[in-house]
Amino acid sequence: MRIKLERPRLISLAAGFTDNPTLPVAGSRRLLNELLGNAALGQAALQYGSTAGDATLRKLTARRIRKLDGNLRGQAAPYEASRTVITHGSQQFLYMVTEALCDPGDIVLVEDPTYFVYLGIMQSRGVAGRGLRMNRDGIDLGHLEQVLESLKRDGSLPRLKILYLVSYYQNPTSRSTSMSVKAGALALLRRYERAAGHPIYLMEDAAYRELGFSGSPSASALAVKGAVNRVIYSGTYSKPFATGVRVGFGILPEELLTPVLRIKGNHDFGTSHLIQQLVGRALESGLYEKNLAKVQRRYRVKAKAMTDAMGEHFPGSVQWEQPEGGLNVWAAWPRKVNTGMKSRFFKQVLDRNVLYVPGGLCYVDDPTRAKPSHEMRLSFGAASQGDIREGIRRLGQGI
Amino acid sequence: MRIKLERPRLISLAAGFTDNPTLPVAGSRRLLNELLGNAALGQAALQYGSTAGDATLRKLTARRIRKLDGNLRGQAAPYEASRTVITHGSQQFLYMVTEALCDPGDIVLVEDPTYFVYLGIMQSRGVAGRGLRMNRDGIDLGHLEQVLESLKRDGSLPRLKILYLVSYYQNPTSRSTSMSVKAGALALLRRYERAAGHPIYLMEDAAYRELGFSGSPSASALAVKGAVNRVIYSGTYSKPFATGVRVGFGILPEELLTPVLRIKGNHDFGTSHLIQQLVGRALESGLYEKNLAKVQRRYRVKAKAMTDAMGEHFPGSVQWEQPEGGLNVWAAWPRKVNTGMKSRFFKQVLDRNVLYVPGGLCYVDDPTRAKPSHEMRLSFGAASQGDIREGIRRLGQGI
Repeated sequence: MRIKLERPRLISLAAGFTDNPTLPVAGSRRLLNELLGNAALGQAALQYGSTAGDATLRKLTARRIRKLDGNLRGQAAPYEASRTVITHGSQQFLYMVTEALCDPGDIVLVEDPTYFVYLGIMQSRGVAGRGLRMNRDGIDLGHLEQVLESLKRDGSLPRLKILYLVSYYQNPTSRSTSMSVKAGALALLRRYERAAGHPIYLMEDAAYRELGFSGSPSASALAVKGAVNRVIYSGTYSKPFATGVRVGFGILPEELLTPVLRIKGNHDFGTSHLIQQLVGRALESGLYEKNLAKVQRRYRVKAKAMTDAMGEHFPGSVQWEQPEGGLNVWAAWPRKVNTGMKSRFFKQVLDRNVLYVPGGLCYVDDPTRAKPSHEMRLSFGAASQGDIREGIRRLGQGI
Repeated sequence: MRIKLERPRLISLAAGFTDNPTLPVAGSRRLLNELLGNAALGQAALQYGSTAGDATLRKLTARRIRKLDGNLRGQAAPYEASRTVITHGSQQFLYMVTEALCDPGDIVLVEDPTYFVYLGIMQSRGVAGRGLRMNRDGIDLGHLEQVLESLKRDGSLPRLKILYLVSYYQNPTSRSTSMSVKAGALALLRRYERAAGHPIYLMEDAAYRELGFSGSPSASALAVKGAVNRVIYSGTYSKPFATGVRVGFGILPEELLTPVLRIKGNHDFGTSHLIQQLVGRALESGLYEKNLAKVQRRYRVKAKAMTDAMGEHFPGSVQWEQPEGGLNVWAAWPRKVNTGMKSRFFKQVLDRNVLYVPGGLCYVDDPTRAKPSHEMRLSFGAASQGDIREGIRRLGQGI
């Protein structure tokens, strides 16, 4: 953001901002008008709510996740409104869960690469990390087992608290985790719990879940049988609806509710009631679904604009996958290319007024492997189609 | 809140909620309509903002505090927009500053009694406290010196980081801190910094500053000469405008900006942009001032309704002061009366469907004195005039 302010002509393919033209301006105006046009409802919206969040929004949220998971019969327990917490963005939820579960020196397992903002949370809480190799359908379960085994061997398994997976159109790779990998990971974690001496949770960050370009992605880990007490589900209305409202949510195992709500009580004792009401009304009125369809179409087009331009302007030695959702393309240059913040590559690209996220930022500090430094995250979320094409052209030709 | 839900006929004189009828429903509707009626402005409002907050709101906020402090010539430094941070309620600001400055085991000095939610923050961060006796114009400086001296003697002065004062119409006593006490406290803190080995900050919580019933209260500690690098000012738009928007702010010494913004980045990377825009427009359009005048009149009337009823229904042995602002009356029963959550007194009152905040909750755990348990906080913020009168009648006659 600072660089962008200093260089107004910069094309940022780095920012996690979303697409401005698809923001639901007119619809939000209508809903807020209705809400504030009624004195009693308006007063309630401008008054404090409760720490866990607006009751209606919690119910709508739990119901929505259950529906996305396929409304499985007899599987109501994981989708209770009482286990749903509304937060100031899903970031706040991730932070609070980490605060609740981890002491300094504890360990969280993450994907290689992972969402770099979560790495900031870990660092701020003094939490150590280990990276897990990824396949096309999520983490490599063999590698997970190896890491669990090595933690057990060196006695640090009791420090392991969370496996953190960004499971849909992952930031940064845009890969999704299959149901069988989620189930396999849960089974493996369960197997090592005795040696750990406590539950090891799977924290599923589903921030991009609704940003698929076609079809419906697989169910969440909440749908894995018997996993209800080990899955922490994190979601958001920021990305699929409006980043400016900053409403996220989480679904928690029952035993974590009280600690997380206490933390929420200490941080801010409740998310702005007005914006919760706006999101609730967007869900109820259908505005949310309608706008989401528009958002999905738009990102599909922009993703294609980006990868088409990459095909045209990038050297043949660069590798990437076509995203099926999300906001990012992950590109790997030959290993000898250093894309890092202090590299000549980064500087050359910036001199041409293009910004990307160096891939190295997306890897956790892990003493057991070196950080790859030849990759980059390219976001098609915020930039216009024209800027995407021009940015990729400059990037490819600047090298 | 839980008790209130279980007893719908309860008259709560405990909740920190504000007065529903004075919430700016129609005005907010008009401002949001204008904002979202313009595509570009609307998109910006529904998009991410920056971690420190909306630039316009930061400028308006800094300017407003400077004006409230009397626009002293040559005193611009403490009121710079660059040192102003917008937060999700002032609670978040208090939390982040405490996280930035305090390690577990550190010490914060607070008023006896103080804002009990801040005690929760201290507890959650593992911070110890010492209570300072209060006079009518704020803490007893003699006692502050005594406490500083005793911390110095027993070697724990290096653990002292913050003096926390709720300086305007304090929650819970409704007393205000005079300018001379603020200046005196700063001078004393400064005197002990060498022995502490680091700055000791005065954190001024001005949440109720704009809720005075008449006249203008004294300037903030920011106006004390030479204090700019030692004063942390915490303010809010929740109480004076709308609790449901949850927009607070703080003004920080320069050296604390980076750590606090890093923490904000980890917690939620920025306050909802939409509600910041609403507050900014309320300030610019004059809605804020107009509504504030209404709020102040309303609370004056409700405060009088409460103390009139107390005069009529409470035994002569109960003592209280007439508030000149804020949301609370602090009442002291004879010392032998226990008003605590588990007392017969509390239960008797609750059986008559009235709820108050037991005074004991407002005292920090301090090994050097026993906690008084004969007081209560009575809030006139949320209840209607009729409920205030009836609640006080039941309370007085139930005993």
